[in-house]
Amino acid sequence: MIRCFTQWEVPQSDAQIAAEILLSADKRGVDSHGIIRLFSYYGSRLQKRLIDPKSPVSVLRETLTTLALDGGNGLGHPVSYKAMQMVIEKAKENSVGFATVRNSNHFGIAGYYAMMALPHNMIGICYTNSTPLVAPTYGKKAMLGTNPIAVAVPARSQLPFVLDMATSIVPIGRISVFQKKRKAIPSGWGMDSEGNPTEDPEKVLQGGALMPLGGPEHLRGYKGYGLALMVDIFAGVLAGASFGENILGGESESPANVGHFFGAFRIDAFRDIFEFKKDMDEIITQLKDSPKAAGQERIYIHGEKEFERAAQAEIEGVPLSDATVSVIREGGEKFSIPFSLVPIKQADLPD
Amino acid sequence: MIRCFTQWEVPQSDAQIAAEILLSADKRGVDSHGIIRLFSYYGSRLQKRLIDPKSPVSVLRETLTTLALDGGNGLGHPVSYKAMQMVIEKAKENSVGFATVRNSNHFGIAGYYAMMALPHNMIGICYTNSTPLVAPTYGKKAMLGTNPIAVAVPARSQLPFVLDMATSIVPIGRISVFQKKRKAIPSGWGMDSEGNPTEDPEKVLQGGALMPLGGPEHLRGYKGYGLALMVDIFAGVLAGASFGENILGGESESPANVGHFFGAFRIDAFRDIFEFKKDMDEIITQLKDSPKAAGQERIYIHGEKEFERAAQAEIEGVPLSDATVSVIREGGEKFSIPFSLVPIKQADLPD
Repeated sequence: MIRCFTQWEVPQSDAQIAAEILLSADKRGVDSHGIIRLFSYYGSRLQKRLIDPKSPVSVLRETLTTLALDGGNGLGHPVSYKAMQMVIEKAKENSVGFATVRNSNHFGIAGYYAMMALPHNMIGICYTNSTPLVAPTYGKKAMLGTNPIAVAVPARSQLPFVLDMATSIVPIGRISVFQKKRKAIPSGWGMDSEGNPTEDPEKVLQGGALMPLGGPEHLRGYKGYGLALMVDIFAGVLAGASFGENILGGESESPANVGHFFGAFRIDAFRDIFEFKKDMDEIITQLKDSPKAAGQERIYIHGEKEFERAAQAEIEGVPLSDATVSVIREGGEKFSIPFSLVPIKQADLPD
Repeated sequence: MIRCFTQWEVPQSDAQIAAEILLSADKRGVDSHGIIRLFSYYGSRLQKRLIDPKSPVSVLRETLTTLALDGGNGLGHPVSYKAMQMVIEKAKENSVGFATVRNSNHFGIAGYYAMMALPHNMIGICYTNSTPLVAPTYGKKAMLGTNPIAVAVPARSQLPFVLDMATSIVPIGRISVFQKKRKAIPSGWGMDSEGNPTEDPEKVLQGGALMPLGGPEHLRGYKGYGLALMVDIFAGVLAGASFGENILGGESESPANVGHFFGAFRIDAFRDIFEFKKDMDEIITQLKDSPKAAGQERIYIHGEKEFERAAQAEIEGVPLSDATVSVIREGGEKFSIPFSLVPIKQADLPD
């Protein structure tokens, strides 16, 4: 990934950051936001200069606690990494720090940036807006992105709480998976071009829209719609980036002008850090130990499955799907960066 | 309401704040969080000294941007009103301000406090935890409250965006309404004591639990569960208040130790306020003007219906349901504060 990025004229240090963040998605099992996008999204747009490889970041406004950045239509990862670093520095000095970024691009998984706060005994938050895919309640046209919310909170002995959720029920990629398998999608995930609920993935993809978290009105889908709009207000409107239906997708021939929002809270500004972490362990343990529904054996905390996958990946390597391998192989050949990894067998793994 | 509160030894100024906030709920059409709770919740607990009428607030920690308060087991409203005022003052000086409150009680509608930021050209946020009613995904016991999220953002010509949402699909009161009418609830709202989805409101109320926003796993109810937990972390754990299953309900004979979280962001720390408000108008107009689903005529922005009801209430008076009137009448007689309002007819209203 680093060799690809540098070949597309991304500076070495930025290439390392982008590669690290893409890799973290595959490690955590969020394959859809990882290496698989290297050529199709980042590579293709960098080559057409629809993303500026130099990522020339500038500061628009700055106070002791806040920062408004312009990403210069660079890669989303380096400017976001820097923004979160600066937000953490501000929080060290003044208890909290926040940054907006305009004129950016897709930045990978939102959870990565929120988690940067964890080693500093801070709570991290991150929002980003994205290409419209979700219809508002009572509407039928995709007007808002799947606009994720990420929040990371450290605990003591327990794993940190890491919520990293799209504000739609499912991402658009889930619909495509069902379409490829020619399977019906569960009722509630999407609507057709007339705004009617549909179980036909084709109809969602062809002029339909995703449903916001909650789904239809009687299950309070307007709350998911409200969360998607809230994210677009912080990441889009407050940042001075594109927003709503104006955000362009990966296929467009113009810059996307995506916006992000980052925040960090020093925990000890509010409470003794030891006491806080002890209580984090307690609320996590309460939930995990609470009685299970019929047929269930385990209750999860947000981020737990991903931490377990990442820990396994550290030992066994990062598993790559066949789809990812063929993308890397084909893309690599095109750029004379041959894919040289050899599949390992279970038997080769350490105990 | 003010006469009742002062009779229960609440200082006049705090009584005015509490009455104003309760009234604002009825004005906005959120009757469940308004006057109807005056006797059953606040009055009964103030009289038993399970709430301290003096609401003796103390400052535990303070920085230029943050504040940790102890509500002294007083009414939730006065301490929350003061906390939000202080947070706004901090934001005036240092761009942002945040406060936690521990040792508090039910504070009415979260949206009221978030909206206090609006006249200052700030974004306001407010979270609170509450008595456990929601089961985590794969669980069957109520472990988290309906923990609301409130966010208020000013616009220019359009009404402000005011999201004020419980993180469960519906509040417990909605289930009771169906139970009283002996009607089935829509599938997805709640579960029975074994964690199975049920349409019987009785089973939800008797040892069952509410579903988090999103509902079952295949519709991503773990996101609503994650939002409820996030609110409990900010409002409960960070505040050093009670949290999770430890929060006591209105019937308990011990203090509830509810926790809250408040925040304010100066918009002009990030962007010119005029440009921001212009774009708020644009995103709101985009959404409202977008194509409607079959059978729908209007797309709403969050808070819009409530602002319309409040505007109507300013002209026509606050409509009180029969249930509310009988509660006020009976409660008032008990405390020798007779209910003297006479119903007005449509014909008496100004044009």
